[in-house]
Amino acid sequence: MTTSITLWSAGQRNNQTEFNAATTGVGPDSWSVRVQRLHGGLSDGVDVVFINNGRLTLAVLPTRGMGIWYGQIDDLRLGWNSPVRNPVHPTFVDEMRRGGIGWLDGFNELICRCGLGWNGAPGDDGDQFLPLHGRVANLPAHEVSLEVSDDGLSLTGVVDEASVFGGFLQLTSVLSTSFDSTSFSIADTVANRSSSPADAEMLYHCNVGRPFLGDGAQFMTAAREMAPRDERAAEDTDGWQSYRGPEHGYAEQVYFYRPISDADGQGLAVLQSPEADKAVAVRFDTSALPWLTQWKNTQAEEDGYCTGLEPATGFPNVRSYEREQGRVVQLDAGEDVTFRLSMEVACDGVAVKALADEVDALQGDSSMEVHATPRAGWSG
Amino acid sequence: MTTSITLWSAGQRNNQTEFNAATTGVGPDSWSVRVQRLHGGLSDGVDVVFINNGRLTLAVLPTRGMGIWYGQIDDLRLGWNSPVRNPVHPTFVDEMRRGGIGWLDGFNELICRCGLGWNGAPGDDGDQFLPLHGRVANLPAHEVSLEVSDDGLSLTGVVDEASVFGGFLQLTSVLSTSFDSTSFSIADTVANRSSSPADAEMLYHCNVGRPFLGDGAQFMTAAREMAPRDERAAEDTDGWQSYRGPEHGYAEQVYFYRPISDADGQGLAVLQSPEADKAVAVRFDTSALPWLTQWKNTQAEEDGYCTGLEPATGFPNVRSYEREQGRVVQLDAGEDVTFRLSMEVACDGVAVKALADEVDALQGDSSMEVHATPRAGWSG
Amino acid sequence: MTTSITLWSAGQRNNQTEFNAATTGVGPDSWSVRVQRLHGGLSDGVDVVFINNGRLTLAVLPTRGMGIWYGQIDDLRLGWNSPVRNPVHPTFVDEMRRGGIGWLDGFNELICRCGLGWNGAPGDDGDQFLPLHGRVANLPAHEVSLEVSDDGLSLTGVVDEASVFGGFLQLTSVLSTSFDSTSFSIADTVANRSSSPADAEMLYHCNVGRPFLGDGAQFMTAAREMAPRDERAAEDTDGWQSYRGPEHGYAEQVYFYRPISDADGQGLAVLQSPEADKAVAVRFDTSALPWLTQWKNTQAEEDGYCTGLEPATGFPNVRSYEREQGRVVQLDAGEDVTFRLSMEVACDGVAVKALADEVDALQGDSSMEVHATPRAGWSG
Repeated sequence: MTTSITLWSAGQRNNQTEFNAATTGVGPDSWSVRVQRLHGGLSDGVDVVFINNGRLTLAVLPTRGMGIWYGQIDDLRLGWNSPVRNPVHPTFVDEMRRGGIGWLDGFNELICRCGLGWNGAPGDDGDQFLPLHGRVANLPAHEVSLEVSDDGLSLTGVVDEASVFGGFLQLTSVLSTSFDSTSFSIADTVANRSSSPADAEMLYHCNVGRPFLGDGAQFMTAAREMAPRDERAAEDTDGWQSYRGPEHGYAEQVYFYRPISDADGQGLAVLQSPEADKAVAVRFDTSALPWLTQWKNTQAEEDGYCTGLEPATGFPNVRSYEREQGRVVQLDAGEDVTFRLSMEVACDGVAVKALADEVDALQGDSSMEVHATPRAGWSG
Repeated sequence: MTTSITLWSAGQRNNQTEFNAATTGVGPDSWSVRVQRLHGGLSDGVDVVFINNGRLTLAVLPTRGMGIWYGQIDDLRLGWNSPVRNPVHPTFVDEMRRGGIGWLDGFNELICRCGLGWNGAPGDDGDQFLPLHGRVANLPAHEVSLEVSDDGLSLTGVVDEASVFGGFLQLTSVLSTSFDSTSFSIADTVANRSSSPADAEMLYHCNVGRPFLGDGAQFMTAAREMAPRDERAAEDTDGWQSYRGPEHGYAEQVYFYRPISDADGQGLAVLQSPEADKAVAVRFDTSALPWLTQWKNTQAEEDGYCTGLEPATGFPNVRSYEREQGRVVQLDAGEDVTFRLSMEVACDGVAVKALADEVDALQGDSSMEVHATPRAGWSG
Repeated sequence: MTTSITLWSAGQRNNQTEFNAATTGVGPDSWSVRVQRLHGGLSDGVDVVFINNGRLTLAVLPTRGMGIWYGQIDDLRLGWNSPVRNPVHPTFVDEMRRGGIGWLDGFNELICRCGLGWNGAPGDDGDQFLPLHGRVANLPAHEVSLEVSDDGLSLTGVVDEASVFGGFLQLTSVLSTSFDSTSFSIADTVANRSSSPADAEMLYHCNVGRPFLGDGAQFMTAAREMAPRDERAAEDTDGWQSYRGPEHGYAEQVYFYRPISDADGQGLAVLQSPEADKAVAVRFDTSALPWLTQWKNTQAEEDGYCTGLEPATGFPNVRSYEREQGRVVQLDAGEDVTFRLSMEVACDGVAVKALADEVDALQGDSSMEVHATPRAGWSG
């Protein structure tokens, strides 16, 4: 049995804001979905959809391009503590601030999309200046619906990135989670709805802090090749796998990977807690997300101690450079591409060990080629 | 009998959102007015006033400077399909985006005002950079009232374009429509409420697509003189009257006209459908709107196939150029100017023929001087 | 007895919007507090908290950084008439407009904060361009609470000025007023919640127009030293104390002061009405606000005839210049600073005379050193 509920459509909002087995007649008693509009501060007008599958609750932000603010499993919080404390309404974000890095004024999610037309550092692409990380995180979904089946919940949102004489990329995002699970998956279709070919880029900025991150936390992934992004990262290339505790004045270190995928084309990146008793895993379909970026950001707690596991269409360089390297998706008129990834939380040592074994098996006998310095073609 | 209803005033909103003969005791049973606040997407917070005169419904956008999103007569939709699908709240529009053409991020109306202080292409005027098409389409009305009389409906909105040390132009817009008619008129008064002389410009971007526009649709106007805006338009100057079907990769062609007016000072521009069975006419008071721009934008359907009939105070060049040519309105302190135009829909061949005859009569024995190339003084 | 009421917190808003002795059981019958969300125009979504202490009503704007729109005592309005008529929602303010003076698009308050990270003229500081007057006036408070005691009312608001890789200054503002008084006080704590030292600047733009300001109104302050800001101000340095009536085309004149403080460290600036029958006094704690700026803005009524009495951490020059001069507050990680000021309205000649006497006593036998021309170190 399946039921579909429209939360927003055509400028109208569903007056009902609480959904569960009793109101829908579908699924176990444990699940619930709640829609809340935030009031006050920079969050004023932000809609949050709290999806509770019975075990894992996800706070989804249709107002911020279907980003995921945080997850919660019992007392365990999945996310990080940004100095930007609460969800920021896009109209408070001026992407041009601070020379084009205004995007950072609203950055605090567990999963934040960078795209659709571009995702990298601010810079010129031809005669157009592209500010940091694209527009989609600051574009609200205008169609949002919830589907409940006997297996689980899914939330679909549609976001338009369009302008007259400016193209039309449309994201249809489907977030799915099974009842009582500690995981969820995302299937994002980006369609070029204009009549001309279009560039598309997508990076999933998956950001995790305490208690997964900490002094001695480990990053695990299977890759054919990796390289530091810049000289700063090259200072500690050998230590890519290990995280340190928070350090005042620490400057971010970023590493780029060419992932190995399994028989189904899935890549895997894992953050294991210092005690190896919990972990977050990100799986991603390398056919559309063939590259992985690791963002080490172990700065002081109050500045936002976290790390990013970031599957993407390319690396977060300026788009012109990525295009030269063939890492920008070219969508013909009417064409679309689907990006798939999932996030899974391991809550005990056994589950953590299984993830570590899975990474090891993926890497197999092959060795990861580690470049000591930035690699030509990856860092522009 | 006349009744006046305040919809917004002094920061307060009328709780009543549906008005008709039963609620007001005025007019025939057929009319209705409905106020709706949109939720979700880029439209979140946009107010729409749906004015139904019994035959024609207009979706007016107080939030977007009293623009008119679309009109509807039975199954006939008056407007166009922009890639920007729904009304965009002004706070999502960054006029400085894409080098000063961010205005296009919110452009999808049947009638969109360009003004009040300037209306043209982005560019410098003295030491101030003026982005595309001015501010008024992205400034919400703060006073909105509805008047119902035995003859029809009128909606008045007041929009301030003001800043400290930045002047104060105030638009008082009155939209009027008779019961059961297929036309409406606009009388816009722009007052300089500062103590210093001020520049004012206004262009009515009246945009029409299917089913009025199509392969073989005709543009009809009476003019003393016309010229293509640029080399691109000059490629097809002779074909100014005819429209083609949607073409992938078509680049806009723009023509400038010096209209002929009737004994009442009214100019006329008509878009006739390919089958000559329907038409849209724009009449405008040439004493305040002495110039007309035709925007041929027969690009692919998905990119926004449409044409613009645009009476204005001048041509949409940068303001410094328009000022040199004497086409910028100079308002002394306390002075105002009133712009008048109307739009009329012809729904059958007889009504269409009458419009064509009216254009012919206006042109009379005089011939339109057609410049094959851009005319000095019109194109900067 | 004291009661504390949360108006906003954690994204939620108190549904109750009217508070008084009957609803709280505290204080005299005369006080009331009302929360109103404005609708329409540029004010849409602005929250106003009207605090009536029984005699003085203050219209506080949590949405605009806890600014105070105006005060009201019987028929006496405390504020000014900006061409920007109503409170402007921050999302309508593009600080980068007009070369970085977009802040003026929302400027109309009795008290408007300029800060927290910078407060001066637009300009570069290192590689960062800082637009006019900082961010805080366009940042909404996310936590707002009302406290009612037997003595009076206080309103607390918390505003975050934060960004990832951009620091985190947090303002906790407490506005207090005694029952039936004609005065109120502000205690603003600005805390550096990042892990790195941070610059902080604060200027209280206290703006008053009719009926306090008028031809013959007097500015009174006790100071060791004063200087005109620029050549324009130097034209009338000797007339610093006297105001003229509104003049078309008048260009602002700004004077800088080094205040004398009393035994408690309080400085004092007074605006006395032409008839000396009413006055506004601003007292400020010179330990944190050691400088005073006088803004003579006696331009035409319709352009915003007013004057500013502006205690501050420095002068409103670009921050790089202020830092060179040692007038920028340096907050270590975790450190905070508290700014205190109060505003008092004298409603009769006796009270006015008392203020004048107080200024005289403060100045005492010392003379104010008046520079005829801009002073090195004060004007950059």
